[in-house]
Amino acid sequence: MALRLGSIVDALGGELHGNPDVQIENIAPLETASNASLSFLSNPKYQQQLAASQAACVIVGQTMQEAALARGACIVAAQPYLYFAKVTQLWKRQHAAAGGVGVHPSAVVDAAAFVDPSASIGALCVVERGARIGAGTVLKSRVTVGEGCIVGERCILHSGVVLGADGFGFAPHDGTWEKIEQLGAVRIGNDVEIGANTCIDRGALQDTIIEDGVKLDNLIQIGHNVRIGQHTAMAGCVGVAGSTVIGAHCTFGGAAMVLGHLTIADHVHISSASMVSRSIRRPGHYTGFFPIDDNAVWEKNAATLKQLYSLRERLKALEKKIKP
Amino acid sequence: MALRLGSIVDALGGELHGNPDVQIENIAPLETASNASLSFLSNPKYQQQLAASQAACVIVGQTMQEAALARGACIVAAQPYLYFAKVTQLWKRQHAAAGGVGVHPSAVVDAAAFVDPSASIGALCVVERGARIGAGTVLKSRVTVGEGCIVGERCILHSGVVLGADGFGFAPHDGTWEKIEQLGAVRIGNDVEIGANTCIDRGALQDTIIEDGVKLDNLIQIGHNVRIGQHTAMAGCVGVAGSTVIGAHCTFGGAAMVLGHLTIADHVHISSASMVSRSIRRPGHYTGFFPIDDNAVWEKNAATLKQLYSLRERLKALEKKIKP
Amino acid sequence: MALRLGSIVDALGGELHGNPDVQIENIAPLETASNASLSFLSNPKYQQQLAASQAACVIVGQTMQEAALARGACIVAAQPYLYFAKVTQLWKRQHAAAGGVGVHPSAVVDAAAFVDPSASIGALCVVERGARIGAGTVLKSRVTVGEGCIVGERCILHSGVVLGADGFGFAPHDGTWEKIEQLGAVRIGNDVEIGANTCIDRGALQDTIIEDGVKLDNLIQIGHNVRIGQHTAMAGCVGVAGSTVIGAHCTFGGAAMVLGHLTIADHVHISSASMVSRSIRRPGHYTGFFPIDDNAVWEKNAATLKQLYSLRERLKALEKKIKP
Repeated sequence: MALRLGSIVDALGGELHGNPDVQIENIAPLETASNASLSFLSNPKYQQQLAASQAACVIVGQTMQEAALARGACIVAAQPYLYFAKVTQLWKRQHAAAGGVGVHPSAVVDAAAFVDPSASIGALCVVERGARIGAGTVLKSRVTVGEGCIVGERCILHSGVVLGADGFGFAPHDGTWEKIEQLGAVRIGNDVEIGANTCIDRGALQDTIIEDGVKLDNLIQIGHNVRIGQHTAMAGCVGVAGSTVIGAHCTFGGAAMVLGHLTIADHVHISSASMVSRSIRRPGHYTGFFPIDDNAVWEKNAATLKQLYSLRERLKALEKKIKP
Repeated sequence: MALRLGSIVDALGGELHGNPDVQIENIAPLETASNASLSFLSNPKYQQQLAASQAACVIVGQTMQEAALARGACIVAAQPYLYFAKVTQLWKRQHAAAGGVGVHPSAVVDAAAFVDPSASIGALCVVERGARIGAGTVLKSRVTVGEGCIVGERCILHSGVVLGADGFGFAPHDGTWEKIEQLGAVRIGNDVEIGANTCIDRGALQDTIIEDGVKLDNLIQIGHNVRIGQHTAMAGCVGVAGSTVIGAHCTFGGAAMVLGHLTIADHVHISSASMVSRSIRRPGHYTGFFPIDDNAVWEKNAATLKQLYSLRERLKALEKKIKP
Repeated sequence: MALRLGSIVDALGGELHGNPDVQIENIAPLETASNASLSFLSNPKYQQQLAASQAACVIVGQTMQEAALARGACIVAAQPYLYFAKVTQLWKRQHAAAGGVGVHPSAVVDAAAFVDPSASIGALCVVERGARIGAGTVLKSRVTVGEGCIVGERCILHSGVVLGADGFGFAPHDGTWEKIEQLGAVRIGNDVEIGANTCIDRGALQDTIIEDGVKLDNLIQIGHNVRIGQHTAMAGCVGVAGSTVIGAHCTFGGAAMVLGHLTIADHVHISSASMVSRSIRRPGHYTGFFPIDDNAVWEKNAATLKQLYSLRERLKALEKKIKP
C-alpha cells in the first residue's frame, strides 16, 4: 500500500519539489501526518500547521510554495484541495479491489430491466421491471431501483437507497385517505451520488427528476414530482416535500427541510436545520433555527417568545406615550 | 397504454359530457395536459388554468361544469379530486404488471410466520417467526417484519421498512446502559401504508399499535409503545418518541417531532418541522419553527433572542417608570 | 411462557417477600398489570399506582418496601429499574427462540471478512471484504457492514443499518463536485447497539469511531471522521456532521443535530430537536427549539421575531430617552 511521489505527479500533474522516489504510505491531515504521509494545505490560514507537520510531502498552492519548501518536499498545484481529491481517487484505483463490474449473483434484476454491461449491481440489490442503469454506474449493496426508474452514467448509489417508492399522495374521503396511484417514475442524471438509506419517490403523474452532478448525502427524503437542478448538494437528513423545484448549484445543510410546491432559485444556500417555508427567488444564504443555549436560559427565552407579539405592542404603546 | 373515456365512467360513475370513444393516453395536470390527456380541476381558484388547458377531458365538480363545457369535454363528479384518485387506481389496474401475489423466491419467510395467500411478499423481504401478514397486503422489496409482528389487510409496506426492531430502552447503571429487552411486538391495522425506510419499533412490554387507515411517509421513526389512531397521516421524516398516544384523523407535516409519553387528541394538525414538547388536548393547528430569513438578518435576530427574557424585563421596568 | 418468582431471585438476587412458587405470566406496568404480572416501581412519585396495582409481585427499592408489602408480594432490590431490566433479559433468555448463532444462508459474507464463530449474521446481511465482526455480536436482518469496517463484541446492529458508506466529501471544481474518495473505515467498540436504518459513514482518511457502550437509536446519521465517546446515547433521527468529536456519557434527544468539526465535552445533554451549532466545552443541559403554539399565535410571534433586533434597538432608544 504505497505510492511513489513521482508516480503521483506523473498521473495528476503538479510540480514536485523533492525526491520522486519517496514512497507515500498514506494520506493524512497536517496534524496527524507521519513522515510517510502525503498531506495538503488548502487554506492559507492553517499555515502554522504546515510548519509543524511531519508529512513527507505537502500539496500546496502557488502562494504557499515558499513556506512549504522551508519545511520539506511539496507538490505545487493550482487548486490544492482539488488535487488532494484526485490523489484520493488515484489511491483508491491503486489499492481497492478491482471494481466488480456486473451483477452480483444475489441481486434480483428483473428480466425487463436494462443494466449497462459496465455498471455494477451490488449484493442483494433489486432492479425492477423497466428500470435502466447507465454505464459506469455503481449500486452498492441493498439498493432498490423501482419499476421504470432511470439512473444515468457514472452514478453511485449507496447501500439502502430506495428509488421509486410511491409518492405520498391521497385524496381525503369522509375522514379516510384514498390512494392516488403514483404513475410517474424517477429519473437520475449522470454523475449523481446518493447516500445510504436515502429515498427518492416516484412522481404522481410525471417523473421526479435529479439532474446531472447532484450529490445527496444519507437519509434524505425527496418527495414526488420534485426536481433538483444540476450540481446541487444536500447534506444528511434533508427533506424536500412534493412538487418543489430546486435550482442548480444550491447547497443544503444537514436536516434542512423544504416545504412542497415551492421554487428555489439557483445558487441558494440553506443552513443546517433550517425550514424553508416559502419560495426563494434570489441567490443567497438563508437560515432559520433556534440558537442553542443553556437549558435554563432557553426556557426563560422560549417562554418569553410566546408573548413576543404582545411585547412589541407594549413597546409601541410606550413609544407613543414618550413621543410627544 | 390508453383508456376510453366511456370505460372510465362505466367503471367509476360520474357524468361524461363528450365523446365516450375518445382515447386517453395519460393523466396530467391542467398546465401540461396534451390533447390526449385527462386532467382535473379540484380547486375552483385554478379556473383560469382550466380555460387554457389542452386536455382532452377535465374532471370537474358541479359548480365548474359550465366553465368546463365552454372549453371541451368534461366528467362531472361530486368530488373531483377523489374521482381523480380513483382514475389513477383504474389506470394502474389496467396498465401495471399483474400484481405478483405470493412470496418472491428471494424473500426469507420463517416457517413459523403466516402469510395470507392473497398477500404479496417482495424480493429480499424478511418475515420472521410468528409474524402475520394479512389478506391483500403488499410488501415491496427489502422489507423486514420482525418476530411476532402483525400486519393487517390491504396494507402497503414500501422498500426498506423495518417493523419490530427493538425499542430504545436502557436502564442506567454506573454510567453504562443496561438493555431492557423489548418483549412486545408491532400491530398494524388494515389499510395502512408505510413509506420507504420507515421504522416502527416493537413495544417494551406491550405492543406498538398503528390503527386502521394510518398513512406514514418515508423515513419516519415510531418509537416503542406508541399508538397512532385511525386515519392519521404523517409526512416524511417525522419522529414520534416512545409511549406517546396520538389520536385519530391527525396530520403531521414533514419532520415534525413528538416527544415521548405525550397524548395528542384527535384532529390535531402539526405543521412541518415543529417540535411537540407537551400533550395537546384540543383539536387545532399547531406550529413551532423558526422562520427562515437572510442569514445576516437571522444572525442579528438569533443573537437578540438569547436576551429576550431580559428585554422583557427592561420593557417592564420602562413601563413602570412611565406609568405614573 | 411463565417464570416462578423463586427462579427470578435465584438468578438475579434481590429479596423476595412472598410465595416463591407463584408463576409470573408477563411483565407489565403497574396500571395494566394483572394478578399474573410482575411489575416494578422505579420512581417513588408513582406510589399511588403501587397501591392500586393488581400485580402479583412488584419490584421496589428499600424505601418502598413497607408500602409494597401493604399491597402484596414484592422483590426488594437496590436499583429496581435496573433489576427490571435484568428481568426482561432473563425473560427473553427463557422464552426467545434459541439465538441463531452463525451466518444465515441468505447473507452475503465476503470470503475475506472475519466473523467470530459466536456472532450471528441475520438474513440478507452483507459483510464485505476485510470487515470483522466480534464475539457475541448480532446483526439482525438486512445489515451492511462495509469493506474494512470493524465491529466489536456483544454489539447489536438492527435491520437496515449501513456501516461504511462513503462519507460526504467533495472538492468544488468549476461549479461541479469532485469526489474525495473515502479511504478510512468505521470502528465500533464493544457493547454498542445501533438502531434500524441508522447510517455510520467511513472516514475520509482515518476511521469513524464509536466507542464502547454507545447506544444509537433508529434513523441516525453519523458523518465521516466523527468520534463518539463511551456510553453516549442518542435517540432517533439524530444527525452528526463530519469530523465532530463527542465526549463520553452524553445524551442526545431525538432529532438533535450537530454541525461538523465541533467538540462536545463529556456529560453534555442535548434536548430533542436542538441544533448544536458550536462546540460545547462544559457539561450541562442545552436546548434550542422553537416552542410550539397555536398556529395563529405562532404566526404573530414568528413575524415579530423577524424584527426582534430592531425591537431591541427601539427599546434601547426609549431607555435613553427616559434615563435622564
